[in-house]
Amino acid sequence: MFLIRPATIDDVPLLRCMIRELAEFEGELESCVIEEADLRRDGFGENLQFRALVAECDQQPAGYALYFDCYSTWVGAEIFLEDLYVRPQFRSRGIGMGLLAEVARIALRENRRALRWEVLDWNKNAIELYEALGAVFCDQWRPVLLYGEPLRQLAQKTL
Amino acid sequence: MFLIRPATIDDVPLLRCMIRELAEFEGELESCVIEEADLRRDGFGENLQFRALVAECDQQPAGYALYFDCYSTWVGAEIFLEDLYVRPQFRSRGIGMGLLAEVARIALRENRRALRWEVLDWNKNAIELYEALGAVFCDQWRPVLLYGEPLRQLAQKTL
Repeated sequence: MFLIRPATIDDVPLLRCMIRELAEFEGELESCVIEEADLRRDGFGENLQFRALVAECDQQPAGYALYFDCYSTWVGAEIFLEDLYVRPQFRSRGIGMGLLAEVARIALRENRRALRWEVLDWNKNAIELYEALGAVFCDQWRPVLLYGEPLRQLAQKTL
Repeated sequence: MFLIRPATIDDVPLLRCMIRELAEFEGELESCVIEEADLRRDGFGENLQFRALVAECDQQPAGYALYFDCYSTWVGAEIFLEDLYVRPQFRSRGIGMGLLAEVARIALRENRRALRWEVLDWNKNAIELYEALGAVFCDQWRPVLLYGEPLRQLAQKTL
């Protein structure tokens, strides 16, 4: 049995720990530089940048979902699911599905039209779960990221 | 010459018009069901879901950028650029670059670490521009969307 609850500020060390476990699973641990102070300020301060849920199994932390509000100019308000993670020893018990379902309930309660997220193309287990749910894979769309020196250079361009 | 300014509530009819032009360019006009009332409430009401910039060229509306705050659990606060559009008759004058540069300046001013967006894989002109800027194409990541009946069914799943 497991339960799912909103994360609180006391969960910040746990959240950062699981965020780093997920980054390691994705092979990108060196890209993960977030600190507890960032999560505390951005998730539980005055200017909220995200919300999170924690899953517990036998009173042990088993996984999390982290999401924020996003917006489609076709349909309006949506939710972007940034992270969905279940610790290896707690997998295959429906915890990932439970976290997703809770995010779906929050979306509908807030009149948000869709959940958006991204999945790594080699994560077969996750892809199978999302396919079974009836999710749409938007493979015509390529995710793009601009950061660091190229972002600073772009900001310096004048009209 | 052109100028770029924040969108105001008086721009809502123009924004919806250009949003629909972009949806048509993307071959998805039938998916675009947003109404002016939605944009007015979500972009200029009490619970802001997005921000937008308008480009003007010779005092005519030439394009727009629409974006919202997003969050990376690796680096913290970022900006998600939902739409970037320049009307056909105003292209090749640097207006798209001007809109992007203004969003980049806003990101840096707010200590946001990156711009995120998505590009259609057949939009060669856009892809060339983004490559020239030093953007990173995250092609291992597949965008996923869940909406409509599958979203409602997911929300009904219990633990």
